[in-house]
Formats: sequence, structure tokens, C-alpha cells
Amino acid sequence: MEPDVPKDRNSRAERIIETAAELFVERGYESTSMRDIANACGISKSLLYHHFSDKYEIFTKAASTGGSGLNEQVEEALAKGGSAREKLLTFMQITARYFEENRLSWIASSQEFWSSNENRVSLKMRVRRDAFENMLRGILDEGVASGEFRIEDTRMAGRLILSSLNWMQRWYRPGGTKTAQDIAEAYFSLILNGIDGA
Amino acid sequence: MEPDVPKDRNSRAERIIETAAELFVERGYESTSMRDIANACGISKSLLYHHFSDKYEIFTKAASTGGSGLNEQVEEALAKGGSAREKLLTFMQITARYFEENRLSWIASSQEFWSSNENRVSLKMRVRRDAFENMLRGILDEGVASGEFRIEDTRMAGRLILSSLNWMQRWYRPGGTKTAQDIAEAYFSLILNGIDGA
Repeated sequence: MEPDVPKDRNSRAERIIETAAELFVERGYESTSMRDIANACGISKSLLYHHFSDKYEIFTKAASTGGSGLNEQVEEALAKGGSAREKLLTFMQITARYFEENRLSWIASSQEFWSSNENRVSLKMRVRRDAFENMLRGILDEGVASGEFRIEDTRMAGRLILSSLNWMQRWYRPGGTKTAQDIAEAYFSLILNGIDGA
Repeated sequence: MEPDVPKDRNSRAERIIETAAELFVERGYESTSMRDIANACGISKSLLYHHFSDKYEIFTKAASTGGSGLNEQVEEALAKGGSAREKLLTFMQITARYFEENRLSWIASSQEFWSSNENRVSLKMRVRRDAFENMLRGILDEGVASGEFRIEDTRMAGRLILSSLNWMQRWYRPGGTKTAQDIAEAYFSLILNGIDGA
């Protein structure tokens, strides 16, 4: 075996984090042991402990990539302009696609974020989440101002939209007939038009 | 101290389960130790182990009350009849109120259910959940048949409604200006009417 030069160490650590993230999502954090992680990576437990001091350290690393990049992608797309309706669709599409592309770290990061243990959630993460929600609120307010949307309470409407996107992490599995983006588009159409047949 | 007659043992076990459920929700399952539970109950660790063999046993007991009763309440209310629109509102109201009244066990039960570790989820729980979702689907199909609702894909519409109710567990805290039922009513109105201002 080659000596552990820094480059190798980094890439091995990344592979461990990815493998562990899969185990956390499939089995849950609690049911995944350091031994399970080592086995899944095909390394010894002592080598695993050489890279990470405990399971929680691996978990926070697995969670830390989720969210970064999403705000920037949404911002960039919104900067292109368009109607509030187009912007809302874009917001939902990009978020769903990002969720699909980063599903494991998204779920780990979300578990981390929504655990009531506020101390665990970094300030940076909260700021990013607030900025994300504010972009959505901005779209809704803009649409109300322009007359495109008729919304009594944009806070509630924002919650409904975020709920639809966030809850996907609990039930959506890749590889079905619909992508996450397809589902987001169906939700967009339902929320825009409503279901009233009258 | 009184000897442990069965009646006392049951009520103490119930108090332990309730206290533990609060800790699981506030801190997360992983971050709650048997020592924490014993301390919060004001009993010794050995007395705690006298009642429960491990933390997971307490967790499953805490989770097991969630869901029971909800199906029956919804069924009973729907049996009274009404338009599909009225039934959908009732479905959402009862579910939200039930969530609020059983918040801790609901969250524990939901964590249990949605953990990908399918072996952990009892068949009974899955049957109840399917029956619950089918009641909602039935309301939507009925509304489409009667012309009250205009829905392209009732499966997607059902998902959206359930997402709005289920995601509440992640952000809703009791004691605010809106009850869970208020929020469900706001969601109902949004989903019924949509936000399109055109």
C-alpha cells in the first residue's frame, strides 16, 4: 500500500464521507456504526479512526455540502428576469433538480438543520436558509404587486411551496418514472391553478 | 417507596415513555442517552433498565401511539357525508389537530416510518398509512367525478396535500399565533383556489 500522502488522504476521506452518507440515508444515523462504515469502505476500523474522530464528525462533513451552491444557482437564474410566474417555476425546478443531484447530502444536511438542537446548526447554514426562503418570498411578493398572483398570506404560500419540495426527501426515490423536477412542475401547476373545478 | 405493583409499574412506564419522547423530539434520538432519560424522569438508571431493555425499546413504544386513532377519526367524520370540498377540508383539519394533540408521538412515529429501514416499520403501520392515504385519494377522486375538483393527477395532488401536513412536524412549534389547524385551513384554501391572479 502507498504511504498516505495528503492527496490520497483527502480523496479517501471524501470516499468515506460519501459511503457513510449513503448508509446514514439508507439505515439512519443511529443504526449505522463506525464498523459498518469501515466495512462498506473496505478499510479497517483503525484506519477509519485515523481519518475521523467519531461518527458525528463524518455526519457533519456529509451534511456540509448540502445547500452550498443552491442559493447561487437560484440567484443566477432569477437575475435573468421574467414574470413572477416564470420565476416561481424556475425556483421550484432548480431546487428539485438540486435535491436530486445532491440527494444524500441534502437529506443529511436537512436532518442536521431541522433537529431541534439549535446549537448544532451553524449560523452560516441558518443565514443561507433564510436567504433561500427570502428569495421565494420575494418572488411571491413581486407577483402579488404585479397582479400575477392573488395571495392573502405570502408567508403561508411560501411554506406550502417549501413543504412540497422539502417533503420529497422523505418519500422520493430516484429511478422512478418521474424526476424530482417533474414532480416540482406538477406541484407548481397545482399551486398556481388550484384544484377547484367550479 | 411503595412496592412495584403492576398498576404503578404501568403508569411509571408511561411517564418514562412520555418524558423520553420529549427528549427524542427536542434533542434527537441519537443525542439522548439512557442516563438523560433517567435524569429527566428523576429515577436511577438501574430502575430505568428495570422497565426497558434499551433505548430503542422506549423509542418504539413512544412511536407506537402515533397514528392510532387518526384513521378512525377521519373515517367517522367522512361518514357524515358532505361535498368533496367539505370532506377535503375536514380531512386536513382533523389531521392537523391530531398532529397538534399528539405531536411528540407523531414525530417519533414518523421518524420510524420514514426511516428507510423497512424492516423496522411494522406491517400494521404501513397498512394504516396506506388506508389513510387512500381516504384522501377517495375524496379527490370523488371531487373529480362530481366536477367539484379539476385535477389532472390525483396522486400528485394527494402528495402535495400530505406534504403540507407532514412537513409541519419539522417546523411547527405549539404556542404561536396560529394553531396547526389554522395552518391546514390556509393550505386548504391555497390548494383549492391556487395563487393565479389572472
